[in-house]
Amino acid sequence: MTAKTIFTTSVEFGDCDPAGIVWFPNFFRWIDAASRNYFIQRGVPPWRELEKAVGLVGTPLVSCTSKFVAPATYGDRVNIHTHIAEWGRTSFVQAHVVERVRDDLSTTLLHCREVRVFAAKVEEGSNGIRAIPIPALVRHLCS
Amino acid sequence: MTAKTIFTTSVEFGDCDPAGIVWFPNFFRWIDAASRNYFIQRGVPPWRELEKAVGLVGTPLVSCTSKFVAPATYGDRVNIHTHIAEWGRTSFVQAHVVERVRDDLSTTLLHCREVRVFAAKVEEGSNGIRAIPIPALVRHLCS
Amino acid sequence: MTAKTIFTTSVEFGDCDPAGIVWFPNFFRWIDAASRNYFIQRGVPPWRELEKAVGLVGTPLVSCTSKFVAPATYGDRVNIHTHIAEWGRTSFVQAHVVERVRDDLSTTLLHCREVRVFAAKVEEGSNGIRAIPIPALVRHLCS
Amino acid sequence: MTAKTIFTTSVEFGDCDPAGIVWFPNFFRWIDAASRNYFIQRGVPPWRELEKAVGLVGTPLVSCTSKFVAPATYGDRVNIHTHIAEWGRTSFVQAHVVERVRDDLSTTLLHCREVRVFAAKVEEGSNGIRAIPIPALVRHLCS
Repeated sequence: MTAKTIFTTSVEFGDCDPAGIVWFPNFFRWIDAASRNYFIQRGVPPWRELEKAVGLVGTPLVSCTSKFVAPATYGDRVNIHTHIAEWGRTSFVQAHVVERVRDDLSTTLLHCREVRVFAAKVEEGSNGIRAIPIPALVRHLCS
Repeated sequence: MTAKTIFTTSVEFGDCDPAGIVWFPNFFRWIDAASRNYFIQRGVPPWRELEKAVGLVGTPLVSCTSKFVAPATYGDRVNIHTHIAEWGRTSFVQAHVVERVRDDLSTTLLHCREVRVFAAKVEEGSNGIRAIPIPALVRHLCS
Repeated sequence: MTAKTIFTTSVEFGDCDPAGIVWFPNFFRWIDAASRNYFIQRGVPPWRELEKAVGLVGTPLVSCTSKFVAPATYGDRVNIHTHIAEWGRTSFVQAHVVERVRDDLSTTLLHCREVRVFAAKVEEGSNGIRAIPIPALVRHLCS
Repeated sequence: MTAKTIFTTSVEFGDCDPAGIVWFPNFFRWIDAASRNYFIQRGVPPWRELEKAVGLVGTPLVSCTSKFVAPATYGDRVNIHTHIAEWGRTSFVQAHVVERVRDDLSTTLLHCREVRVFAAKVEEGSNGIRAIPIPALVRHLCS
């Protein structure tokens, strides 16, 4: 059985656009937080520590597919349900369901399926990055 | 023949994360600007004028598929090449290719394919939105 | 005695810049949320309801003075302590102290003093705004 | 005589809030870009190169005072006029005037006065930062 985590945030006035609803790049901001939160909940150390240990600088996106079902507005709570659907050698598939809670009612807002890799710098001080094998510790903690 | 537009921006320090590369939600920020820029370049009035005329509040996303190929960092220029791949009755498919320019060299960073709808408020003052037929003026200007 | 409220958030990877610390515009993002949260905690209805009732569209900034004392990074919690230091006829002074919590230790990060006004549209559908007298309901709930 | 630089950007739909005007943290996003742009225009290498040379990781804020005079909305151009008003040993005062251009008319939007320091990591891999003397090269290029 695979773990599921929940990341929770509130929708603020400034997250909304002139149409009064969440401007969609903010959903990706929260999904990125939910992605990292998954690892923290499983006991994985923060990237800055794994950088010292194995050179890891983060888990950049390779691809991303999203379906938007309903909008949200300020005052709503947002819960993101996250799990890992598939593990590769350097990559993994992470699936997120974003829902809003308004007046105690939950409504699904969007589905997002991401492929991410574990990445290190091509060389020290470079801006190039390369995929690295998923660190054994991470793989172990997330099983 | 369909029109293509280019939206250009610069990558700033604050657009980058602790790995020193563009944090991906910022790409969606720029893609959203490129989407709107497409219509402006075709002579479509700003949404706020179409809101008064036909109730339009914007072109929210229905779905989005992206492939990330290479990273960018601060100091890079970013060009987004945008065209409309398909027109529906209330929706359209908009395709974006994002490239960076660094030392006069162009490199493709990501491909993004969006389905968007033309949307109006469900009712005045509501936060609900509904798809509306693409305004004739918009359809005409973008042919 | 005046009320004090606390707004809490977590610092995420994407809130940090290539130096690994919170990029300062994100502090203003959270301070804006803390400003609105103050009114919500006092029982003031959301702006969208006051817009229907008295035309209020928000509480834009008139001026802002900030002192940054210490940085934060991802994994930190951030608490913002907010109170209203002064009431005018259309404006108010709101003071915020931002602190981080890391390993159960609280550290002050910054002080911010804002002057804001209650604002309405100059006219329906306009992008111009004008200060309006603070709604009696707001003044009452915040005393 | 001191140099002045201009940083230009466009206001996008997503930069605006439900009141239809620029959400103020976005002004600080652009001011931060204008601050860095000042040094680039003077020929100062990007921070990532100065990090290798002298450990510099950026120019974080120490304090900031702003006065907001008029709002902007999507479709406006924004120009930021920047100069350095004062040099210290580790710090400098940078002044910004932000104006919008709409229908060929320029309007001042806000004034901002920042104190910033040149900063290095307290130690390699740390999240703590400390002020360092302004690098001689920077001081030379900006005179």
